[in-house]
Amino acid sequence: MTHPDDLTTGFLFTDQYQLSMAQLYWRQGLHDTVAQFDYFFRRYPDYGEHQAGYAITAGLGTLLEWMATTRVSSDEIEALRSQQTAGGTQRFDDGFLEWLAEFGSFDSLKVRAVPEGRVVHATEPIAIVEGPLALAQIVETSFLNHLNYPTLIATKASRIVEQARGGQVLEFGLRRGPNSGANAGTRASLIGGADGSSNVGVSHALGADPKGTHAHSMVQLFIARGEGELAAFRAYADANPDECLLLVDTIDTLGSGIPNAITVFEELRQSGHQPLGIRLDSGDLAHLAVRSARMLDDAGFDDVSIVLSSDLDELAMWQIREQIHQEAPAYDLEPAAVVGRLVYGVGSRLISSHGDPSLGGVFKLVGIASEMPGEWLPAIKISDTPAKMPIPGRKRLWRVYDRRGLATADVVSLETETLQSGVDLVVHDPHRPGVSRTIAAVNNAEIEELHTVVFDDGRPTDAGEPLVVLRGRRDSDLQRLDVGVRRLVNPHRYHVSVTTAVRDLQNALIASVRDQAPDA
Amino acid sequence: MTHPDDLTTGFLFTDQYQLSMAQLYWRQGLHDTVAQFDYFFRRYPDYGEHQAGYAITAGLGTLLEWMATTRVSSDEIEALRSQQTAGGTQRFDDGFLEWLAEFGSFDSLKVRAVPEGRVVHATEPIAIVEGPLALAQIVETSFLNHLNYPTLIATKASRIVEQARGGQVLEFGLRRGPNSGANAGTRASLIGGADGSSNVGVSHALGADPKGTHAHSMVQLFIARGEGELAAFRAYADANPDECLLLVDTIDTLGSGIPNAITVFEELRQSGHQPLGIRLDSGDLAHLAVRSARMLDDAGFDDVSIVLSSDLDELAMWQIREQIHQEAPAYDLEPAAVVGRLVYGVGSRLISSHGDPSLGGVFKLVGIASEMPGEWLPAIKISDTPAKMPIPGRKRLWRVYDRRGLATADVVSLETETLQSGVDLVVHDPHRPGVSRTIAAVNNAEIEELHTVVFDDGRPTDAGEPLVVLRGRRDSDLQRLDVGVRRLVNPHRYHVSVTTAVRDLQNALIASVRDQAPDA
Repeated sequence: MTHPDDLTTGFLFTDQYQLSMAQLYWRQGLHDTVAQFDYFFRRYPDYGEHQAGYAITAGLGTLLEWMATTRVSSDEIEALRSQQTAGGTQRFDDGFLEWLAEFGSFDSLKVRAVPEGRVVHATEPIAIVEGPLALAQIVETSFLNHLNYPTLIATKASRIVEQARGGQVLEFGLRRGPNSGANAGTRASLIGGADGSSNVGVSHALGADPKGTHAHSMVQLFIARGEGELAAFRAYADANPDECLLLVDTIDTLGSGIPNAITVFEELRQSGHQPLGIRLDSGDLAHLAVRSARMLDDAGFDDVSIVLSSDLDELAMWQIREQIHQEAPAYDLEPAAVVGRLVYGVGSRLISSHGDPSLGGVFKLVGIASEMPGEWLPAIKISDTPAKMPIPGRKRLWRVYDRRGLATADVVSLETETLQSGVDLVVHDPHRPGVSRTIAAVNNAEIEELHTVVFDDGRPTDAGEPLVVLRGRRDSDLQRLDVGVRRLVNPHRYHVSVTTAVRDLQNALIASVRDQAPDA
Repeated sequence: MTHPDDLTTGFLFTDQYQLSMAQLYWRQGLHDTVAQFDYFFRRYPDYGEHQAGYAITAGLGTLLEWMATTRVSSDEIEALRSQQTAGGTQRFDDGFLEWLAEFGSFDSLKVRAVPEGRVVHATEPIAIVEGPLALAQIVETSFLNHLNYPTLIATKASRIVEQARGGQVLEFGLRRGPNSGANAGTRASLIGGADGSSNVGVSHALGADPKGTHAHSMVQLFIARGEGELAAFRAYADANPDECLLLVDTIDTLGSGIPNAITVFEELRQSGHQPLGIRLDSGDLAHLAVRSARMLDDAGFDDVSIVLSSDLDELAMWQIREQIHQEAPAYDLEPAAVVGRLVYGVGSRLISSHGDPSLGGVFKLVGIASEMPGEWLPAIKISDTPAKMPIPGRKRLWRVYDRRGLATADVVSLETETLQSGVDLVVHDPHRPGVSRTIAAVNNAEIEELHTVVFDDGRPTDAGEPLVVLRGRRDSDLQRLDVGVRRLVNPHRYHVSVTTAVRDLQNALIASVRDQAPDA
């Protein structure tokens, strides 16, 4: 029972029905028809007690690298040839497999997308794939897989970083992350604003400095040998004199850990080194942070950090800050000073997006090339769940900034429309018929087209964007996002609208599809 | 910004602090001290409205393969050498890196574990690692990563399969799974009882038949071309005459999809083929299943399946069955007959373990070899959170079956103890001092030791266990598990206890550690 990587992470990293449909298209002579698919998600993550009002798109760099390097292998063709139908016949025709062996790569696809790291919103097309129908269909699963989870995690990271109020956030989730997918989670966390990660391999691959201290096991070891916690701390300080950060809760945080840490910090200072801090990993973190700060201050270490870990997320961090504001004065401490020295180690709740662990991003056919050169046939899906209806046709995506410079709406237009700033814009809700509004010229101070071509001629157009660029996009987009939309709980709903031309197309298509139903 | 696999999935697939501690042990001459670590989880998944009362262990096969094939590379050594401290010095000594370059593999570790696929319980040691301290420490992160997520998913799958009441369960989660980690999720789903998966690569790697039908996009395409849903269904039937399963909700399930499907099914039957079924992917699935069953029955297709998909999990499946029992009679249908033809396509809520998306399994030092040959020093951690205290010492794990043949308790003994069936067993709660009970001889009808050696001499002792063996373990363990423990909501708590010898060791250690605290 092994996992040969060539079968599980390459061209067959897809769903069976994509291949069934590709074969059907091939049999019908439609496999080379140029089609367009949109990637979008229908709703923001909803964590139960709290909800996201925006998302940070992530995963694109990894996806495009996968698309550029993946082509079908002979082993994969033979695996498909081995599949049998219930009737005992070969499921995939030899002819189809020959075609797949020759054309089974994603070189012929073109991708336009919102660049990685940017703020994106529900229902808008975040990425658009155009190319031969069969290959665009086969890429669907991997496309979704490479974008959904990273976007989910970058969004969670961004929320957590907002709640740190400037304090460092370190991603510690590898041990509880989803197998090798945790690497994508680490990368997405860093894009979403985390300051560092404990994940050694990914940190090196991205040029980031891996972060970490020590575990309980090191202290336990010294205790088991009869040498005690203080000896453990001394050994750690000896090995890491310039980066001494001590985990103080193995025995008793206030009774043993902090006093021993202070002893070692004093020894370090005497030998000319500056201790970094302590880490709290259990108990009432807010209370222990206040008590630890008091003890550290009294010993003359008011400049060392207090690292908190253990089931942290944005809600817990908010509550910890609140509690510190309530408790600190009783210990004669300035609450802001205690909060200001906190560092947050965030593990399972970040890497698993606790509260809402999957993003329902979809990849929907929105148009196919007609037999008339240059003409397109828009596609639509009318579902028993109205919110599942995608916006049809070939489209462009725009972001409108108001006179304060804040993003006020994203607008989806047809490909043939070019939106201008400084004029009134009449826009419509894509899913609530009859709900329209006008963005006044004064609130259309700036307009930005969000898509760029990111994949063409079989390769990413901008390969190897460094992490700092992706992080910078998130930072600058957040600065231009209303604080109401960024709110932790019940955020203000950001407007995503369509132009009148898109609305008219949508209505015409719905009517024409309904006409085709047998009972119409 | 690339992800070279050699850095991200090999020896450096670990947390930074493992390497810091390994270096510390090396500096102290402790790196070769033989240590023992236990892997266990503290609580079952709790999904909010419903909770697990057992778990299915998974991931061991993949983990052991990784351990057998992973050794540090020169690129990895150079990456570590490049790390600088805050003080500008090299973070890892050349001497330590030389040692790591020579000994950086997991060949020297020995692993005992509960075999993959079995029912396991909270607080008990599921796997035990013994070997040189530094390497056992470095393997911690990957060990946890490879077991936590698969165990979480196998457990969720097992619950979902139980709620299918014999109906097929197909895993459809790749598109919303956690990047490449979704492959581990698919494998775990199959171990946990799912009947098949849409994931092509993993299915082939495991020798399973990949499952799937078609998507809305195929129907949309025919509609956009002006040919309509019926033409799409005919094309699908033409390509898949013996496996014709039609997605009926692209336009209007009852008004268009089902009537068109019936037309095509009749054509198939006339040409000597047996249609497989329909798939419902939106709307009120229970109601639509009843209405579809009525229409299919009336057309003479009472033997085709009804596949349900769209946000299914164990709770939704239970509710769908309930609703069908209420609604079917109004349509003159036998509820059991409707339920009996259901197939469940389960995607995001399985692959992400919706409700509780991470398993908090830990890897804790429980003992080190003393300088006296053959003697061991047990290790303990006393935390500010009492439930975080691991069971100390070198241990064995036993399962006691009662006179009905059902598992009644798991018992942790010292390594020196051998438990017998047919005698009274006095056992103790590991975390609630003073809570003891006696398992009467009559309810100790059979006793089974759960651990076997699974990794030795640098390789798995039983490489390549086929999927059917792992699935069989789950099936037979579930048959011997009380239905109360298997209950969907608020399950009966299964007893995990320790022997008197373990309890006495635990108490002695707590006392001795408390004596070492500075304020004692």
